[in-house]
This record gives sequence, structure tokens and C-alpha cells, in this order.
Amino acid sequence: MHIVIIVGSLRKDSVNRKLALAAQGLLPEDATSEIAELHGIPLYDGDLEVNYPEVVTDLRERIRKADGVLIAVPEYNYSVSGVLKNALDWVSRPPRTQPFNQKPVAVMGAGGMGGTVRGQMHLRQIMLYLEAYVMGRPELLLAQGTSKFDGEGNLIDEKSKEQLERFVASFVGWVEKMGV
Amino acid sequence: MHIVIIVGSLRKDSVNRKLALAAQGLLPEDATSEIAELHGIPLYDGDLEVNYPEVVTDLRERIRKADGVLIAVPEYNYSVSGVLKNALDWVSRPPRTQPFNQKPVAVMGAGGMGGTVRGQMHLRQIMLYLEAYVMGRPELLLAQGTSKFDGEGNLIDEKSKEQLERFVASFVGWVEKMGV
Amino acid sequence: MHIVIIVGSLRKDSVNRKLALAAQGLLPEDATSEIAELHGIPLYDGDLEVNYPEVVTDLRERIRKADGVLIAVPEYNYSVSGVLKNALDWVSRPPRTQPFNQKPVAVMGAGGMGGTVRGQMHLRQIMLYLEAYVMGRPELLLAQGTSKFDGEGNLIDEKSKEQLERFVASFVGWVEKMGV
Amino acid sequence: MHIVIIVGSLRKDSVNRKLALAAQGLLPEDATSEIAELHGIPLYDGDLEVNYPEVVTDLRERIRKADGVLIAVPEYNYSVSGVLKNALDWVSRPPRTQPFNQKPVAVMGAGGMGGTVRGQMHLRQIMLYLEAYVMGRPELLLAQGTSKFDGEGNLIDEKSKEQLERFVASFVGWVEKMGV
Repeated sequence: MHIVIIVGSLRKDSVNRKLALAAQGLLPEDATSEIAELHGIPLYDGDLEVNYPEVVTDLRERIRKADGVLIAVPEYNYSVSGVLKNALDWVSRPPRTQPFNQKPVAVMGAGGMGGTVRGQMHLRQIMLYLEAYVMGRPELLLAQGTSKFDGEGNLIDEKSKEQLERFVASFVGWVEKMGV
Repeated sequence: MHIVIIVGSLRKDSVNRKLALAAQGLLPEDATSEIAELHGIPLYDGDLEVNYPEVVTDLRERIRKADGVLIAVPEYNYSVSGVLKNALDWVSRPPRTQPFNQKPVAVMGAGGMGGTVRGQMHLRQIMLYLEAYVMGRPELLLAQGTSKFDGEGNLIDEKSKEQLERFVASFVGWVEKMGV
Repeated sequence: MHIVIIVGSLRKDSVNRKLALAAQGLLPEDATSEIAELHGIPLYDGDLEVNYPEVVTDLRERIRKADGVLIAVPEYNYSVSGVLKNALDWVSRPPRTQPFNQKPVAVMGAGGMGGTVRGQMHLRQIMLYLEAYVMGRPELLLAQGTSKFDGEGNLIDEKSKEQLERFVASFVGWVEKMGV
Repeated sequence: MHIVIIVGSLRKDSVNRKLALAAQGLLPEDATSEIAELHGIPLYDGDLEVNYPEVVTDLRERIRKADGVLIAVPEYNYSVSGVLKNALDWVSRPPRTQPFNQKPVAVMGAGGMGGTVRGQMHLRQIMLYLEAYVMGRPELLLAQGTSKFDGEGNLIDEKSKEQLERFVASFVGWVEKMGV
């Protein structure tokens, strides 16, 4: 099983990157995984589709080859980050079938009082269009996320760790159930 | 009255740019207006905030000075364009108060079977965070938008023209009602 | 395979009842099915839970025994009908585990310009809480539904018939895929 | 100024009724107010519209006469209560213009980890259809609401009290601003 974990924030110290890494550390030993960063993706412009950017092709192929995709989504302004949405807009475009089609996906997020609840609701609607198989519950909403990691990026809040363990285990089961 | 009209798509031939221009043409004679394009805005990165991009500062100030803002939003993947969301993520950040606060705003969109209904719902939620005064109804949902303009960008569908006229007139009333 | 089809409207001449019956007629020959009506369910009141209404117990057990549930949802006031939501509020309550847990479900609807798109988005969020396995796409959004049935309730619009056939076939595949 | 406060739950000990009463106690001295309960409203059925239920007519008229309406909404299954939605479905129907048109409204809610955030998002979309003037922010999301009231229904959590005071004061300002 190979899992791609997308980080929806560009900021170095992003709590959602920490969350992505913490989730990666909880994947089964026999699974391989990689973190997909979104730096360097240009703004989506339909007129550029003739010169499809290589960084987008690369991301698209990584998603296509994965058995499952985990998305760590920050919430900005009550929705997903524009950075994430822009990347999704790119990878969903021709010339090739969009890569989320029938792909097992789970969404998670850290930050704010609601733990990105509003952003995740939007991301679920986006993933509906993309025909991904999005895991329902358990959800992973890490409220006030920054306080739950130590300086080295370790998730130190015990209750949050248990939630994340349960979440990742459920996701692995989801990938197995939905995979073709 | 000065109105800024934001175009949420970068594509030259975008139907939402045509819609923006059609709406601009319907503003009262004594109103001034400008089209705000989103080209050249970098991806939002919290680490770049120390060097706030000039193109963002420019957009932010144009919004701040406007009496009302009209947003033409394409719907990509059942949500707003990443391009628009990314621009909103930038202008909402410090060092200055975000410019949509108490700003009269209306959203409109063209495209698809639903006329961007799903994207507009997301944009309304985003605007809630930004504390804009968003006009409720009438809504402007231009289904199958491309077919409703001629080759020179004129809105030629009579029913749509009437809807847009009513929408713009309502928006002008909204700006007057909500303006401080 | 046994399918329960819930009709979210009480009105005799409801277009969503017609849609439910049309979908029922498209189920495979070896599947059994039943229409679940929502008449006679009292308003949900937590204080009544000690005397759980029999009509609710009946609905709950029908859902529990089904291999899949199809919901025909009218859109009232940009959301699902209160009648449907009230029924879901009842069946989700103790004393027994709520019956939608891991149940294959699909949502469809007829009416209005958007074919109940806003209502379906809400219903998907509700079903997320209920831990149902909700089919993603294809969606079934029957715009201006009433005009597409004849006086005897037959779906006479050819394009809509094809959409419904594809939708029901996909749902049957979904029930098979997700069923335990 | 006359304010109607709708309680979206029927349960006697409902935390949203407590919230409604707490909000009522914070209205200005020169304002009058009343609590609108939703008991006894039948399930909405289009076939019953010829015999419009008196309890619905009563609710509709109370809303119509109010200068502003405050809604305390419980969140059931990630949406508003069916009880509230059913009442809104009724009052929005002919023979008379629906009473929320251009009515200043604010939504609030107590309960759960998110303080009814998902329910409020749905209610905002419903109110968009109803053409109410819904206050944006501040929002009032009372997480884990039950623990914040004492046995006699007094809001005893200091931070929550301050939030509610600010919320009610903002609502009063909103009613003044939007009122005709």
C-alpha cells in the first residue's frame, strides 16, 4: 500500500505539515508513503493548459499511482486554503482523466476552535465532484492544533494522539475496502 | 459610488470576465468602477508575509477604497476557483485590517448546469468570515453561460439580460443601504 | 438485494414520490423493494424518547434490514424538507444503534431550477454524521421535475430516463460494493 | 423594538431554550420580546395548505410583526433540527408573503464540540432563500453548552456570558441598521 499525503499549506512551520508527518508515522510498517508539497504550482489558468506545468504533472502522477491519498487541510477564511484548491483545480484538468477518480481519500485538519470543520465540509464537496471515495467518519478535527505539538513537531497531546491513531487505522481499512 | 468588480478566473476568454464587463456596463452613469484581475498574485505563504507582495497590497487597497465589491466567481470542482480563494487568503492577512470588513458585496457567476450555485454557496461562507455585508437575493446564476454571450462578449440572451439588470440594480441599492 | 426508498415529501402529487416510483421500477428483477412514507411521524422531542413511537421503530427497522436506501429529497427553502429531517432525527436516536451506520445510501431529488442541488448538499452532510456510505456520483438532479412526468406518473423525458437508469444501475453497484 | 426568539428544540430541558432565555435577558430595557415555541406544529404537507393550521398562522404573524428574530438552533445530525426546518417550511408558504422577507435575523446555538457550527451554516443557507437579513458576525457558537448553565438555567460561564452580551448587543445594532 502506497499513500500520498498532501499538505495544504506552504508555511514551513505549518501545523498541518506536522499533522501530516504525525499521520505518516502511524501508517503500517508495510506501507510506503510520501509527503506531497504544493510549492511552485502556478495559479491555474486555462490558457496555460497547452503547456501543462511539469510540477502539476508530477503531482497528478503521484496521486494516480497512490493507493490512497490523505489531505491535511488548513482552514483559511472558513474554507480550504486557496493553495490547496488551486492545486486541485490543476490536477483535475485534461489532457488526462483526473486522478482522484475512485481514489480512496481521507481529509483531516488542524487549527482554530473548530479544527477546520468548515474547510473540511468544503473539501468534501470538492471531492464529490472529483469522484473520490472519501472516508466518512471518524473525522479528524484538531482544534487549537499548534498547542498540541512540541517544538520538534511531535504530537504530544494524548487524546489527540489516540484520535489520530484511530483515524489513520480507519483510513488504512478504507483504502483496503475501496481499492480496486 | 465606486465599485470594484473582481474576476475570479485568469483565462482570457473567461465567461465570468464577460459577465463582469456586462455587469459593469449596467452600473448607474454616476458610478465609477474598475475591473480587478487576479493575475500575478503569488500562492499564499505565511512565510512571505514579511515581504507583502505589492500586487496584493494594490488589490487590498482597491477593495478598501471601494463602496462596494462585485465578485464574478467561476465554479471549479464544486467550489470557487483556487485563484480567487488564494487572492482572498492574501488580502485577509495582516498587517492591516482585512478590507472586506463591513463592505457591501455581491456574488455572481456563470457556467455549468447550476450557474455556479455550489461555488457561490462556498463564497458566501468565506465572506461570512471576512465580515462582508453580502447581498442575499436576487442571486445571479447564469447556467450554460458561454452560450449566452456573442463573439464580442455581449450578453445576448434576453432573459439573462433582464436578470442581470435586476441583479445590478439590487446591488446598487444594497451598497446604498449598507454603506457607512 | 432489498432496497428501501424514502420519500421526503408528504404531498400526494409530489414529484419526488413519482421519482421514487420511477427509480423503483428500474431496480433489477431479482431485487425486492419498498417505498417508505413519512406520514404520521410526530415532531422529534427528546422527552418522548421514553415512549418511542411505533411508526419510528417501524421505519428504523425497515432501514436496518435494507441492503441499501435510496432517498428522494425535495428541496424546500434551500435545504431538505423538515419532514425528512425530522424522520432522520428520530431514527438516529437511541435506544438502538442508528440504522444508517455503514448503510449504502444514494440521494436524488426533483424540482426547481437546480434539481434540489442545495438540498442534496445538506443531506450529504447529514448522512456523514449518520455514517452512511453515500454514493458520490453520478448525481440525480431532476430540474423542473414536474414537467418530466405524465399524468400517470411516468417519467416521459428521454434524457431524464437515461440519467435515472444510469443512476439506479450505479446505486445497485454501490450496494454490492459496500455491502457487508 | 420587539424581538421574537425562536427555540428550535421541543425538549423541556433543552440547552437552546436556556440560551434563548439568557439572550432575552440581555435585550435592552426598552425592547419587548417573546419566546416562540414550536410545539404542536404539524408536519408540513402541501395538501394541508387549504386548511392552514392556526398554530402556523400564529407563528407567521408573530414573525411578521417582530422587528427582529433571533433563532436558537440545536444541531442534530450535522444540520438544524427537523422541528425547526419543518416550522420554517410552513411559515414560508402561501397564502401570504413569507414573513422573513427583509427581516433582521440572527442565529445562535449551543451544544456539541462545535457549538452547532454545521447547523448554523445550513440555517444561513435556508435564511438566504427566505430573504432574511441575517447578521454575519459575531457568531454565537456555545460548545458543550449544557455545562455552561446552572440548574436554574443561568449562564454561569463568564467567557460565554461576555460572548452572548456582545452577540445580543450586535444583534440589536443589526435590527436598528436593517429595519425599515
